[in-house]
Amino acid sequence: MTSPILLTPGPLTTSSQTKQAMLTDWGSWDTAFNQLTASVCQDITHIAQGQDTHVCVPLQGSGTFAVEAALGTLVPRQGKVLVPNNGAYCQRMVRILGYLGRQVLVLDHREDEPADPSRIEAVLAADPTITHVAQVHCETGTGILNPLHEIALAVARQQRSLIVDAMSSFAALPIDLRRTPIDALIAASGKCLEGVPGMGFVIARQDLLAQAAGHSHSLSLDLHDQWTYLNQTGQWRFTPPTHVMAALRSSIDQFHAEGATAARGARYRNNCNTLVQGMRALGLQTYLPDEHQAPIIVTFHAPKHPKYQFATLYQGVRDKGFVLYPGKLTEVETFRVGCIGAIGESEISQAVHAIGQTLNEQGIQL
Amino acid sequence: MTSPILLTPGPLTTSSQTKQAMLTDWGSWDTAFNQLTASVCQDITHIAQGQDTHVCVPLQGSGTFAVEAALGTLVPRQGKVLVPNNGAYCQRMVRILGYLGRQVLVLDHREDEPADPSRIEAVLAADPTITHVAQVHCETGTGILNPLHEIALAVARQQRSLIVDAMSSFAALPIDLRRTPIDALIAASGKCLEGVPGMGFVIARQDLLAQAAGHSHSLSLDLHDQWTYLNQTGQWRFTPPTHVMAALRSSIDQFHAEGATAARGARYRNNCNTLVQGMRALGLQTYLPDEHQAPIIVTFHAPKHPKYQFATLYQGVRDKGFVLYPGKLTEVETFRVGCIGAIGESEISQAVHAIGQTLNEQGIQL
Repeated sequence: MTSPILLTPGPLTTSSQTKQAMLTDWGSWDTAFNQLTASVCQDITHIAQGQDTHVCVPLQGSGTFAVEAALGTLVPRQGKVLVPNNGAYCQRMVRILGYLGRQVLVLDHREDEPADPSRIEAVLAADPTITHVAQVHCETGTGILNPLHEIALAVARQQRSLIVDAMSSFAALPIDLRRTPIDALIAASGKCLEGVPGMGFVIARQDLLAQAAGHSHSLSLDLHDQWTYLNQTGQWRFTPPTHVMAALRSSIDQFHAEGATAARGARYRNNCNTLVQGMRALGLQTYLPDEHQAPIIVTFHAPKHPKYQFATLYQGVRDKGFVLYPGKLTEVETFRVGCIGAIGESEISQAVHAIGQTLNEQGIQL
Repeated sequence: MTSPILLTPGPLTTSSQTKQAMLTDWGSWDTAFNQLTASVCQDITHIAQGQDTHVCVPLQGSGTFAVEAALGTLVPRQGKVLVPNNGAYCQRMVRILGYLGRQVLVLDHREDEPADPSRIEAVLAADPTITHVAQVHCETGTGILNPLHEIALAVARQQRSLIVDAMSSFAALPIDLRRTPIDALIAASGKCLEGVPGMGFVIARQDLLAQAAGHSHSLSLDLHDQWTYLNQTGQWRFTPPTHVMAALRSSIDQFHAEGATAARGARYRNNCNTLVQGMRALGLQTYLPDEHQAPIIVTFHAPKHPKYQFATLYQGVRDKGFVLYPGKLTEVETFRVGCIGAIGESEISQAVHAIGQTLNEQGIQL
């Protein structure tokens, strides 16, 4: 079976080399696998320049599991978390904090408006009981880029702790922990590192993690316990997704061979530009203005045409070998197209062509 | 790189066909993947004969995540759980319940003694505040088989709810939910179905699951929410481990082609007999008497010889292409050898030969 090209925010199209790395079985207690885990964690920490201050803790499950683990482990039970909200993944953090029984303050923004560092700083200054800020870097719900560096400086000036969901930005957009103060940075295997899905990771400040014993609401999601055991034994506490880890090792090697974050970000930016120009030429409009658009996933307004339905557009494009992604906005009808994965300008151009052809076939003139 | 033969309780040696099923990328929103999820869940429910009463809810992460999800979702916050304890995985359930803040009563057994249905029933009769029993089927810490059917009948007579960790027994030892009353049965992809690790699943009574909204301590581990969303959309709530699921689909097909639980159990029983006879011929002794031994993993006493160290035995056998497993008992020095995975008598015989050869090389005469 030939894989279609996935224009989605993960799982994404991975290289053949990455998938072939899964053709070996690994013993989870074996030295070879321990070395694989250690090397992956070391490389991930280095990608964010956190080697002097932070440690990488891998966690089984999807990226959301890692977000919940970071919030549950690093926010004490009496903590209070500010969540600047401009989309679905911000709201998911609010929902997680509700399960955890932590106090939450939501700072609402419009979904087409980046989180505002000065508003965040003003709220922190006005409410000294807030202990943490939980910020999404690239909000995949729309594809908007939030100004992480400026937010981090604002949070640091107010001496609060910053936890960042960098799920869809890590390894594509530069994050340098030496100059951008972030206590925990969360991402996953199946995003811009271009591995397969099945695990997340948290790059956490070691001194804070060391103080976080007893905070977690969950054994499985207790990052402090996961890190302590990994430190002592070189092994995961519970069965690791060995094949997913092997694929991630391979995909990180390919990431470095490509030229790391700068090169990967440039390729995605080029994908994004090709996509947006091509779609505009078809008469489709982006939801976000270009200056707020991250080069990760682009939200397009649904064509205003009586014959348009997302399900039929999806199927027509799918039959041509490309997988689109539905919109996630409640008030505006949209759909999304991802720019990430082991794909380049050629695949994006073909996808735009397939979208145009499908609209034509379905009698949707724009 | 050639995979060594894994004589471990998971991850295990998988077939080439299972690993090759991971060479395709899947869109998690795509109909093809929804169908894959539905077919896997349906097959798993049928394997336990739960199709009229139970539903299968898949969950990202290791098997322990699924155990925690089942306990957190199905035991109400005011519930009280009896845990018959004869090993490490029973103790892990006690630890999880501590995180969850549920009341726990531990009924201790010796580690070489199967859980006793009459003792369990007596405790339930004496304490009407106990709402649930959490039972491990095959306790992988030693490899002991607990009498699940008799325990289930005792729990049912006392009208309590039974949650079973069948991680290492499901699909190898028969469990028929039509005649053995179990409310939730938990296992994982990388065990006797011979998939790769990365997800667990809970086969839960649908009526109980439907009443379990609001119990869970965790969004990621909320089985009720996972099931409701899957039911409504055909999709997982959060990014699924797509390649792990594709491998599981293939491995379940192979399981049926082999002759399902009866044939798989027979192969493992034959592996176990070959192993035990071969090891006894080398002068090694099993920890458990044969009548309590499940055909899953066998605990052997460490050779009483001054030159013996597990690490050096492990490495010598590893160099010959086989991966052993350490013991998990605190008071007796042991090591473990698994009988499960895509291996047969031939691989087991070769492994026994490699163990004998290594002991010889290291000057350990028994």
